[in-house]
Amino acid sequence: MKVLKERILRDGRVIMPDILKVDSFLNHQIDVALFDEIGKEFARRFQKERINKILTIESSGIALAVMTARYFHDCPVVFVKKANSKIMDPHAYKAKVHSFTKNNDYTAQCAKAYLGPEDHILIIDDFLANGAAVGGMLEICKQAQAHVEGVGIVIEKGFQEGHDKIVSQGIHLESLAIIDHFENGQVVFK
Amino acid sequence: MKVLKERILRDGRVIMPDILKVDSFLNHQIDVALFDEIGKEFARRFQKERINKILTIESSGIALAVMTARYFHDCPVVFVKKANSKIMDPHAYKAKVHSFTKNNDYTAQCAKAYLGPEDHILIIDDFLANGAAVGGMLEICKQAQAHVEGVGIVIEKGFQEGHDKIVSQGIHLESLAIIDHFENGQVVFK
Repeated sequence: MKVLKERILRDGRVIMPDILKVDSFLNHQIDVALFDEIGKEFARRFQKERINKILTIESSGIALAVMTARYFHDCPVVFVKKANSKIMDPHAYKAKVHSFTKNNDYTAQCAKAYLGPEDHILIIDDFLANGAAVGGMLEICKQAQAHVEGVGIVIEKGFQEGHDKIVSQGIHLESLAIIDHFENGQVVFK
Repeated sequence: MKVLKERILRDGRVIMPDILKVDSFLNHQIDVALFDEIGKEFARRFQKERINKILTIESSGIALAVMTARYFHDCPVVFVKKANSKIMDPHAYKAKVHSFTKNNDYTAQCAKAYLGPEDHILIIDDFLANGAAVGGMLEICKQAQAHVEGVGIVIEKGFQEGHDKIVSQGIHLESLAIIDHFENGQVVFK
């Protein structure tokens, strides 16, 4: 997706050896017009799939999922939660996920009421690296016997293992910008 | 807002003495078409304010803020973060907030780059009860010398102190559904 790659090159910042910071437009401040374009692009790439619900994980996935749902006839969005709150449904699908960014484990949870065998799911997330968060969502869909029709990612780190973990399960994966490697603090796309 | 109040009466569930659970359409599963109506209604109520940025707090506020921004010429959304991550900007505005829902304290943080004296802010959130989360956002705006033009809330618990805390500062507050009290496990609107 050309406009996204240009934006990453212009406003993204590479810190530490392999962290790309895009919080000026993607996951702290949100460029709403760009998100609309991203939603439209996901709809184009998954137009042949039968999708009735979009699944994502808090927090950065939520805005992307909602803007994508606009292009799937305003289908519902369900966002998986990361922590246990006092009012979290005790009847929830659960998956343990390791966050490499925050270097901790959390339990991804989704109330059973909002996911089931009748659902044809598009999973949306901002980043794909090791595939931990997407793996947690796939595990939750499996528990719910929901059908995963696709996984849509905004930025994929093509040199990490998340990609293979997903496509080896026969799942339709679309990433709008795939990073091949970093070179002198710059992003090089595949 | 009639359609919202009807939805709360139909799908909301009152648990414990004073907790309203609306996660079937507001803060776990998201009714995207309803959120579009909510965004349109906030735009109508704040049409006289000069707003160039929408501020919210993760996670439940994000989808509401983005759908509202659609009606403010796709202005940027900034979402305040609740936890410290490895890649969080160390140069951030910070405010300590007590969560009554989760019964813990957290530090609300917003990178300094995304909020400043040039900003005219609409704060959006899903619930207003004690006003703790909104209070944290107001504190962050104060540190940034940003101008708060209004606070837009989806569901206000009118019997708690959040309302007075905000309007006593001369801030334009709009709540789309105001709960007067709970009666036999039912919501009674003001």
